[in-house]
Amino acid sequence: MALKKYVYFFGEGKREMKKLLGGKGANLSEMTNIGLPVPCGFTITTEVCNLFYDLGKRYPEGLEDQIEENLKKLEEKMGMGFGDEKNPLLVSVRSGAVFSMPGMMDTVLNLGLNDKTVAALIEKTKNERFGWDSYRRFVQMFGDVVMDVEHNKFEEALQSKKDKKNVKFDTELTAEDLRGLVEDYKKIIKEAKGRNFPQDPREQLKMSIGAVFGSWNNKRAISYRNIHDLPHNLGTAVNVQAMVFGNMGQDSGTGVAFTRNPATGEDKFYGEYLINAQGEDVVAGTRTPQHISKLEEEMPENYKQLMDIRKKLEEHYRDMQDVEFTIQEGKLYMLQTRTGKRTAAAALQIAVDMVDQGYIDKKTAVTRVEPQMLDQLLHKQLDKKAKKNAELLTKGLPASPGAALGKVVFDADTAVKEAKSENVILVRTETSPEDIQGMAVAQGILTARGGMTSHAAVVARGMGKCCVAGAEDIKVFEDKQYFEVNGSKVNKGDWVTLDGSTGEVFKGKIPVVDPEIGKNFKKFMSWVDDYKKIGVRANADTPNDAKVALNFGAEGIGLCRTEHMFFEADRIKAMRKMIVANSKEEREKALAKLLPIQKKDFMEIFKVMNDMPVTIRLLDPPLHEFLPHEDDDVREIAGELGLKFDELKATVNSLHEMNPMLGHRGCRLSITYPEILEMQVRAIFEATVELTKEGYKVKPEVMIPLVGDVKEVKVLKDQIIKIADGIMKKENLKFDYKVGTMIEVPRACVTADEIATEAEFFSFGTNDLTQMAYGFSRDDFGKFLPDYIEKGILEKDPFATLDRNGVGQLIKMGVEKGRKARENLKIGICGEHGGDPSSVEFCHMVGMDYVSCSPYRVLVARLAAAHAAIKEEEQKIY
Amino acid sequence: MALKKYVYFFGEGKREMKKLLGGKGANLSEMTNIGLPVPCGFTITTEVCNLFYDLGKRYPEGLEDQIEENLKKLEEKMGMGFGDEKNPLLVSVRSGAVFSMPGMMDTVLNLGLNDKTVAALIEKTKNERFGWDSYRRFVQMFGDVVMDVEHNKFEEALQSKKDKKNVKFDTELTAEDLRGLVEDYKKIIKEAKGRNFPQDPREQLKMSIGAVFGSWNNKRAISYRNIHDLPHNLGTAVNVQAMVFGNMGQDSGTGVAFTRNPATGEDKFYGEYLINAQGEDVVAGTRTPQHISKLEEEMPENYKQLMDIRKKLEEHYRDMQDVEFTIQEGKLYMLQTRTGKRTAAAALQIAVDMVDQGYIDKKTAVTRVEPQMLDQLLHKQLDKKAKKNAELLTKGLPASPGAALGKVVFDADTAVKEAKSENVILVRTETSPEDIQGMAVAQGILTARGGMTSHAAVVARGMGKCCVAGAEDIKVFEDKQYFEVNGSKVNKGDWVTLDGSTGEVFKGKIPVVDPEIGKNFKKFMSWVDDYKKIGVRANADTPNDAKVALNFGAEGIGLCRTEHMFFEADRIKAMRKMIVANSKEEREKALAKLLPIQKKDFMEIFKVMNDMPVTIRLLDPPLHEFLPHEDDDVREIAGELGLKFDELKATVNSLHEMNPMLGHRGCRLSITYPEILEMQVRAIFEATVELTKEGYKVKPEVMIPLVGDVKEVKVLKDQIIKIADGIMKKENLKFDYKVGTMIEVPRACVTADEIATEAEFFSFGTNDLTQMAYGFSRDDFGKFLPDYIEKGILEKDPFATLDRNGVGQLIKMGVEKGRKARENLKIGICGEHGGDPSSVEFCHMVGMDYVSCSPYRVLVARLAAAHAAIKEEEQKIY
Repeated sequence: MALKKYVYFFGEGKREMKKLLGGKGANLSEMTNIGLPVPCGFTITTEVCNLFYDLGKRYPEGLEDQIEENLKKLEEKMGMGFGDEKNPLLVSVRSGAVFSMPGMMDTVLNLGLNDKTVAALIEKTKNERFGWDSYRRFVQMFGDVVMDVEHNKFEEALQSKKDKKNVKFDTELTAEDLRGLVEDYKKIIKEAKGRNFPQDPREQLKMSIGAVFGSWNNKRAISYRNIHDLPHNLGTAVNVQAMVFGNMGQDSGTGVAFTRNPATGEDKFYGEYLINAQGEDVVAGTRTPQHISKLEEEMPENYKQLMDIRKKLEEHYRDMQDVEFTIQEGKLYMLQTRTGKRTAAAALQIAVDMVDQGYIDKKTAVTRVEPQMLDQLLHKQLDKKAKKNAELLTKGLPASPGAALGKVVFDADTAVKEAKSENVILVRTETSPEDIQGMAVAQGILTARGGMTSHAAVVARGMGKCCVAGAEDIKVFEDKQYFEVNGSKVNKGDWVTLDGSTGEVFKGKIPVVDPEIGKNFKKFMSWVDDYKKIGVRANADTPNDAKVALNFGAEGIGLCRTEHMFFEADRIKAMRKMIVANSKEEREKALAKLLPIQKKDFMEIFKVMNDMPVTIRLLDPPLHEFLPHEDDDVREIAGELGLKFDELKATVNSLHEMNPMLGHRGCRLSITYPEILEMQVRAIFEATVELTKEGYKVKPEVMIPLVGDVKEVKVLKDQIIKIADGIMKKENLKFDYKVGTMIEVPRACVTADEIATEAEFFSFGTNDLTQMAYGFSRDDFGKFLPDYIEKGILEKDPFATLDRNGVGQLIKMGVEKGRKARENLKIGICGEHGGDPSSVEFCHMVGMDYVSCSPYRVLVARLAAAHAAIKEEEQKIY
Repeated sequence: MALKKYVYFFGEGKREMKKLLGGKGANLSEMTNIGLPVPCGFTITTEVCNLFYDLGKRYPEGLEDQIEENLKKLEEKMGMGFGDEKNPLLVSVRSGAVFSMPGMMDTVLNLGLNDKTVAALIEKTKNERFGWDSYRRFVQMFGDVVMDVEHNKFEEALQSKKDKKNVKFDTELTAEDLRGLVEDYKKIIKEAKGRNFPQDPREQLKMSIGAVFGSWNNKRAISYRNIHDLPHNLGTAVNVQAMVFGNMGQDSGTGVAFTRNPATGEDKFYGEYLINAQGEDVVAGTRTPQHISKLEEEMPENYKQLMDIRKKLEEHYRDMQDVEFTIQEGKLYMLQTRTGKRTAAAALQIAVDMVDQGYIDKKTAVTRVEPQMLDQLLHKQLDKKAKKNAELLTKGLPASPGAALGKVVFDADTAVKEAKSENVILVRTETSPEDIQGMAVAQGILTARGGMTSHAAVVARGMGKCCVAGAEDIKVFEDKQYFEVNGSKVNKGDWVTLDGSTGEVFKGKIPVVDPEIGKNFKKFMSWVDDYKKIGVRANADTPNDAKVALNFGAEGIGLCRTEHMFFEADRIKAMRKMIVANSKEEREKALAKLLPIQKKDFMEIFKVMNDMPVTIRLLDPPLHEFLPHEDDDVREIAGELGLKFDELKATVNSLHEMNPMLGHRGCRLSITYPEILEMQVRAIFEATVELTKEGYKVKPEVMIPLVGDVKEVKVLKDQIIKIADGIMKKENLKFDYKVGTMIEVPRACVTADEIATEAEFFSFGTNDLTQMAYGFSRDDFGKFLPDYIEKGILEKDPFATLDRNGVGQLIKMGVEKGRKARENLKIGICGEHGGDPSSVEFCHMVGMDYVSCSPYRVLVARLAAAHAAIKEEEQKIY
C-alpha cells in the first residue's frame, strides 16, 4: 500500500490546498509556482497534526522518511548541508493553520545551529557576534518552546550576565558574553530536564515539529479559537524553510507591505522596511522603519523587483495582498503573502477599482466588503491619534456606533435646554421612554445599565446616534448631578467623549472626524442589489426616520411603532387622559383627541413611503410606561390632568407590574381596551383613504403584536375588518390592506400553523422572542452576561446576533408551520437582528421575504442579504 | 336506495347509542328494553339536527314519513289518537343532547291540545280547570318557544287578568278565567306573528321539533358549550313522548330520586316526591317535597315498584342512577334515568361498595372517582347551611381549597403575634417571600392580586392551607389596617371566612366542618396504585412537607426548593450577609455559616425519604427577594447587619430588576457566584455521607434550574462532580447521585438533545415554561385573564391546566429530543401542573417517568395517573 503523502515541498501544493497545508504553506507553494523568489522549504500537512493527536502525540508511520526525503531535496536546492560543518543549512520551523492565529502557536528559528555549525556561520558572515547571538537565541527558543523549560530561567541568566558586565542592553554584550550564555543556557536545560540540548540538527528538527503540533492545543490557542468561533479539529501544518537573514549588512533588510493602501484603498504600494534587520526588529520598535517608497532610492533593483511581484501577486490573487519579504545580501526573498486586512473605505475602493481594472467581477466585488464595515462609513469617528493620548474613564457596551463629545447632563429636560447652545451627552442609569426628547437632542447617550438591546441602545441605534450602554462601573447620582467611575468624579457640565463603536468613554474632548463616503459607494450598492434576494425594510416611527431609510434604500417599513408617537410633549397628555379614564366613554373621549394626531402621523409616513408597504404595529407597551412613577412627577402630572395626587397614584399603582415584559401589553391591550385599537385602526384607514384620494398609493399592513394564540388574532382581525368595511362603505372607496402578526412569543412559533389561518403576514420580533426563548430580560441581562461570555457559555450576545441553535429553531418552525397553513404567507423579521449580517443570512436561509432594521442599518442589511444569496449560490455550484 | 333511519321508537335504541339518540333518548330506549314502565315515544336522531342545519333549517327528505309512522305506532300503543276529539294523545317534545345541558334548550309540553281536544281532556279528567290550565300553559309555551313571541306579552296578559279579577296567584284564577286567557294568548300570537296558533296537532309537532333543533344553537346553549368545553357539532336529538300527569289527584304524583345517597354514598334509596303535582311544582318550591321513604306509607305499591326498579337499574347500569318518575292515577312511569352526580365521599363509598357487591371490578371502581374530587376529602369545608345565610363580600380565585375563618390581619408580623391566641386570616395586596411566616401561622390567606399560581396560591397549596387569591374588588390599605370591598369596610380584627374551594369571601364566622375520610379510602388507593404507571413524587421543602407527602403515598421528592430554607428568621440574616458581601471571601465566610444549616435540613429530609429519590434544586430566586425594599425596612435591617443605610440601599438598588422573572436567577446565580453552589452541593453530599454512615439509603439528585443551554449544565456539573469526588475521597466512601436540570425555558426544550448529553434527568418546570411560552407573567396575568376567558381566547387558566397545544408541544419536543440523546433519561414534571389531572394525563401520554406535585395533591395525582393508564389501555383495546 502506497503511503499517504504527508509532506509537500514548496511548489507541490497550491493555494486551494489551504485546508491541508495551512494558509502560510499553501501560499508559499503558490508563490513558488508562479515563480516568485521564495526560500525553499516544505510543509508537513495538517492531517499529520490530527494523526499526531490520534496516535497519542506520536508521528504516523512513514512521516520521518518523507521528511528526510524533503530535507535532502532542500539541501540539494540550497547547495548546503543540514548539520554540515562548512556550509550549514539553517531552517525555520513555523506553524501554519488554516485560519490565521497570529502569535498563538510556536515558532523556532535558526534551527540547525550547534557547537560546530555556529563556527561555519561565523566564518560565512564574518561576524562572530552575529553567529553567537543567533546560536544563543536558538538555544533559548528551543529550550523554552520545544523542551518546555521555564522561560524565566533564561531571562535570569541573561540578566545576571548583563549585571555582571554592568551593561543595560542585550546589544552591549560581546560575542564572548554570548558564547558564555550559550553554555549557561545549556546547563539550565540539563538541570531542568535531565537531558542535554540536542546537538544533532535532525533531532532538533524532529523535536521542533512535535512542539509546533503540540502548540495547536496550548491554552492560548484553544481560547483564541473559542473567542473567534474557529473549529478545534482542523490542526496546524508545519513549515520547514531555509533561513534567510536580513541582518547581514547594508545590502540586507526586511519589510512588510500591502499591495494597496489598506486605510484608503488607494492603488499604491504601501509598507515599511528596515535595512540590516530581522523581522523581530521591526516589531520591537527600537528602530523606526522607513516608508517603502524610500527603498526605491536605497535599493532600486530590489524595489523594482518588489513592484513586479506586487503586480504579479494582484494579477494572480485578484485581491490586495499583505506580504513579508527579506533581502539577504542584495537578494530578495518573499516569506509570506496573504489577503490584506483593510478599512471599510479601503475595502469599498479596492472592490470598485478592481472591477474597473478587470481583476474581478461585480459579484466578487460584492463579497469583498464585509457588511459590518459599512457601519464605519456612516458614523463620525474619533481622531485616532488624539484618542491615544486621551484619558479613558471606563468601557461599556458599544451600543450604537459613532463618536460623540459634549457636556454631561443627567436628565432629559436639562438636555433639551442646554442643547440649544451646547453639545450635550445624556448620562442616565438607564433610559426610559420619558427620556426620548433628551436623547434626540443629545450628541450621545451613556448609561450605566442595560445591554445591547436596552432601551437606550435600541433608541440610539434607531436615531443613528452614538451610545455607550451598560457601563457598569459608573455610578450615576442623578439627584446630585454627577457620576463616579473608578475613583473619578464627573460633574454636570464636564466634557466627555464617547466612542460608540468600541464602548470607550473618555474624559474631556477628543476631536471627531467626519465619515468619508467615496463616490464609488452608489455604484457598489447597485451591484449589491443585483445579487440580494431578500427584501430590506426599515423600522421607522417618524416621517424623518422613513426618509432616512428611503435614502439608504429601504423597500418599505417593516415596523412602525405607534407608541413612540405618543411620547412627544403635546401628545402624552392626551394619552395620559386616556389611561386614567374611569369608563369606556371617558376613554373614548380621550382617544378621539388622539385620532387626528395619529392620522396625521400616518399620512406623513405614507406619503414618504408612497407605493411601498408600511407595517404599523398596534400599541405595544404596557400603559404604565406612559405614566410617571416618582411621587413628585405624579403630583405634577396629576395637576396637569386635573386629578388629585391620590387618584393618579392609585392608577399608577394599579397598573404596576412585577414583570412588565410579560405583562399587560401587546395585543392584550387591544383585547381589554378594544377602543384603543379602534382609534388606531381608524387613523390608519382614514389616512389611507385621504391619501388614496390625493393619488398616493398606500399599502398599509396592520400588525398585531405579542400574539400567542390564533384566537387573539381572530378576535382583533374581525374588529379590524369591520372598521375597514365601515370606512370603505362610508367613503365609497376600496383600499387594500393586510392584517398580520408579530411572532415573538415562543407559543406563536409552536402554533404558527394555527395563527397563519388568520394572519396574512408574520413578522418575527426576535428581541422579545430571544428574551422569552432564553428567559433573559434584556434590561437585566447585563448583570450576568459578562460571566456567561467569560465562561464560554455564550459566545455572542444573542440580542445582537440571532441564536440559530435555539431561537433559530423556533423561527424555522414558525416559518415552516406558517407556510404550511398559508402558502403565500409573507414573512419578515423586525427585531434588532434585522440589521445583523449573520442574522440576515439566517433569515435568507429560512426563506423569509424580508428583513427590517433600523434606518442606519439598511445598508448593512442589503449587503448582508447579497452575501447570503451569493453564498447560497456558490454552495449550490460547488 | 333505502332511506336512513331517522327515528327510533323507544326500545329500538339502546344506551350505547347516546351519540345518535342523545343521553335522554338512549336511556329511555334502554329502560324500555329492560322492561321498565316508560311512557311510549320515539327519538329523532342527532343526525337529523345536523342535517337540519346543513339544509338551511329544513328537514331531510323522508323524515316526515318516519315521524308519521312512529306517531301511528305511538297512537296504537297508547290506544289514543293524536288530535282525537274523544281520546286525544298528548305528547311532550324534549331536547336530548349527548351531554346533558340542563335548561339550555327548549321543551314543549301538552302538545296535541287544541280547542277541541281540550274538551276531551276535561271530560277525561273531570277537571275543567286542569284542562284549561293545561291548554293555557301549552299555548303560552308554544307561542314563546316555538313561535318566538315575546315572553313578556303572555305574562302581561296573565297579570292583567289577575288584576281584573283582583287576585294574586295563578291558582286563584278559575277555569273560565283560564279559558279567556287562552283566547287572549291566541290573539297575542296572531298580532305578533300574523298567523294563528296552529290547531292541527301535526303542525304543532312539526313546528316544535324545528324549535328544539333551533334551540341547539341559541345563545345560551352555545355559551354553555363554550364554558363546559363541549363540541358544537354534536347536535341534539328530539324526544316525542306520550304525556303522563302526576297532577291527576291523590293517586298521582311525581318525584326525583337517586339509587344511593349522592352525598354520603350510603346504599339507600334517596329522593323526594310530591303528591298530585307536576315536575314544575317540585322545582317551583311552592310546596315542600316529601322524603322518598314517606312514599312507602303513602303509596306502598308504587314504592315497592320503585325499589324493584332501583335494583334493576343498578344491576343494569352498574352505577348509581338519578331518576325521574311520575305516578298517574296509581300507575308508575319512569321518565328519565342517568348517572347520578355525587360528592367525593359518595363517589368513593359507592365505588368500593359496588366492588364488594360484585357490580363492578376494581378497574371500573378506580374510574368512578374523579381525581379532582379527592381534594374535597382532605380539606375542611364550610357548613353548607350556614353558608347560605352568610354575607358574601366578594369572590376571588379558588387558589387553595378548604375553608378558614379568622380575624383579619394585614402583615406577617402581626399574624405571628396574634396567631398565638387567635385564628387569623392574613390579608395582603399580594404576598412575597417575606410573608411566609405569617402565612404559616394564618388559617387562611386572602390577596387582592395574583392568579392561581401567584406566590400566595403556590405557597398556600404547598402548605395545604386555604387561600383566596386575586380578589380584585378588594382594596387593601395595609398602612391604615383595613380593606374595602364593594362598599364594605373590613377592619383589622374583624372576622371573615374564606372558602378556598370556591373563592368566596364571607363577612363574619361560618362554622367549618372536618373532612370525613371513610375507612374505604386506603382500599381504594391501593387499587389506584395497581393501575397507575407513572410515578408520583411531591414538591417538599421541609421535613414536615416530606412527611405529609409520604403519608399521601409520594414515591420521592421531585422538587425540594432550597431557598425556602433561608426565609426563616434565624437564617435570613446569614443569607443577607452573604448577599451584601463585597468580595468572594466575605461571601464565603457568610456561606460557611449557612452550610451546617442547609446540611441539617437535608439530613432531616433524607431521613424521612429514606431509600427514595430526593431532587434538590439549587438556589433559584433572584437575590433581591431576600432583601427588604421599603426604606424603613432597609434602615432596620441595615442596623441588624451592621451596615449603613446607604450601603444596604445601594445593594438593594443594584440588585433591582425590571423583569425579575427573566433576570439574574436560577443557574445564572450559580454561574456568577460559584461559591453559593459550592456551599449547597457540599451540604447535600456531606448530609448524604453522614446518613449513609448511619445506615440510611440516600438518593440525592442535584437539579440545576433555569437551564437554557447545555454549556450552563456542563460548567456547573463539572463543579458538582469535583465537589462530590473531593468528599468521596476525603471520606473514603462512595455514594450515588444524579445531576439533572429543570426544563423551564423554551430554549431548553428546543435544544433538549444537547442538554441531555450532560443532564441525567429532566424535570419540566411548567410554571415558568408556561410563563415564557405564552409571555405571561403569572403575577400580572390577572389583569387580562378575565377578558381572555370572557372572549373565549383562553378556555382555561394555562397555569392550572397544562396548555397541551402550545406548551405541551414544547414539552413533547423536549422529551423526544432528550431521550434521543440519552435513552434512559429520567423525566418528570415539578410545576403546579403535576397535581392537575388533565396535566397528569398529558405527562403520562408523553412518556414521563413521574409527576411531582404539592404534598396535598399527591392523592389527586395518583388517581389521575391511574385514570390516564386505564384510558390508554382501553383505547388500545377498543
